[in-house]
Amino acid sequence: MLQFSNSLTRLLGELKKLPGVGEKSALRLAFHLLKSPGNIEALAESLKQVAAKVGFCSVCFAITEEDPCWICSGDRDGSTLCVVEEPQDLLALERSRAFKGRYHVLQGTLSPLNGVTPADLRIAELLERLTAEGVKEVLIATNFTVEGEATALYLTKLIKPLNIRVTRLAHGIPIGSDLEYVDAATVQRAVEGRSEL
Amino acid sequence: MLQFSNSLTRLLGELKKLPGVGEKSALRLAFHLLKSPGNIEALAESLKQVAAKVGFCSVCFAITEEDPCWICSGDRDGSTLCVVEEPQDLLALERSRAFKGRYHVLQGTLSPLNGVTPADLRIAELLERLTAEGVKEVLIATNFTVEGEATALYLTKLIKPLNIRVTRLAHGIPIGSDLEYVDAATVQRAVEGRSEL
Repeated sequence: MLQFSNSLTRLLGELKKLPGVGEKSALRLAFHLLKSPGNIEALAESLKQVAAKVGFCSVCFAITEEDPCWICSGDRDGSTLCVVEEPQDLLALERSRAFKGRYHVLQGTLSPLNGVTPADLRIAELLERLTAEGVKEVLIATNFTVEGEATALYLTKLIKPLNIRVTRLAHGIPIGSDLEYVDAATVQRAVEGRSEL
Repeated sequence: MLQFSNSLTRLLGELKKLPGVGEKSALRLAFHLLKSPGNIEALAESLKQVAAKVGFCSVCFAITEEDPCWICSGDRDGSTLCVVEEPQDLLALERSRAFKGRYHVLQGTLSPLNGVTPADLRIAELLERLTAEGVKEVLIATNFTVEGEATALYLTKLIKPLNIRVTRLAHGIPIGSDLEYVDAATVQRAVEGRSEL
């Protein structure tokens, strides 16, 4: 009969809660960790540190160690606010170095089927910021999924009546792609949004 | 400029040491964990427990919480010893329920190119056990890779002169496979090892 020690079984259970980790990968990770006890300690320690120190910014709800986060406490342009779904979307935009304003993280998307309603997102906080910070443009950068688009539409309907400009990331051909392999809907949007040379 | 907090950077570094985890997956895991602080604490705690409690069996070098492990301290047949590379190989054999004897984990394979010599494996301990425990058969269950085969050959040359039977796992067609898709070398071994019906 196969028998695992209690602490190993518990670790496997915890590892399996991670995204993309199933029975086999949990075992693989556990055995890898067991081969280097120093690494286990270091991983455990850094997890505890993160749990203790890292939280959400009380202004924009991004992940941060200091509250407010370095963007909210910095001197970035406050007239443009970029709305994203998750903290990792903020990172993707920061990597592009194209956006110079501030952010607001919704911490999810509207998804009635999964029971996610406007009250579950940071929408009330967003509306408060719009007036308090004198925002002139809201760039909605939710994902281009059904839920992301629905959330963008919902926000547009809320924000437009406040006489604030609402914009959305452009659709188009990704850099470096072959036209041949780009889906028809994307090509259509790229034609509609064509620019003068 | 992109800026991570110190503790988050450290956690990402630790996560990237795991097998199959690169920059992107480390970020994905970290953000997943940050969404459920309870899970971070539980994972950290169970890692510490494992680091503190789980070690190697002093007899067979499998992973265990009690020393000697439950197989070595149990009443399994001591006349047959199965030699495997890693603790997870022992698990694979135990799952098959086909082997009723005891195990010996080498904790690696011979690999001169990577600087792994016989002295780095638990081979001296294996030879000691053979005499001390009156072993009659050694089933070599190293993997069927170049290193695994080389290790099997090396062990055979060491053990045969001791008048101990040395056996190897059978080659053949895996259960449920189409002959069409099985490689020629495997089919060849399956023909050579054919059995009477």
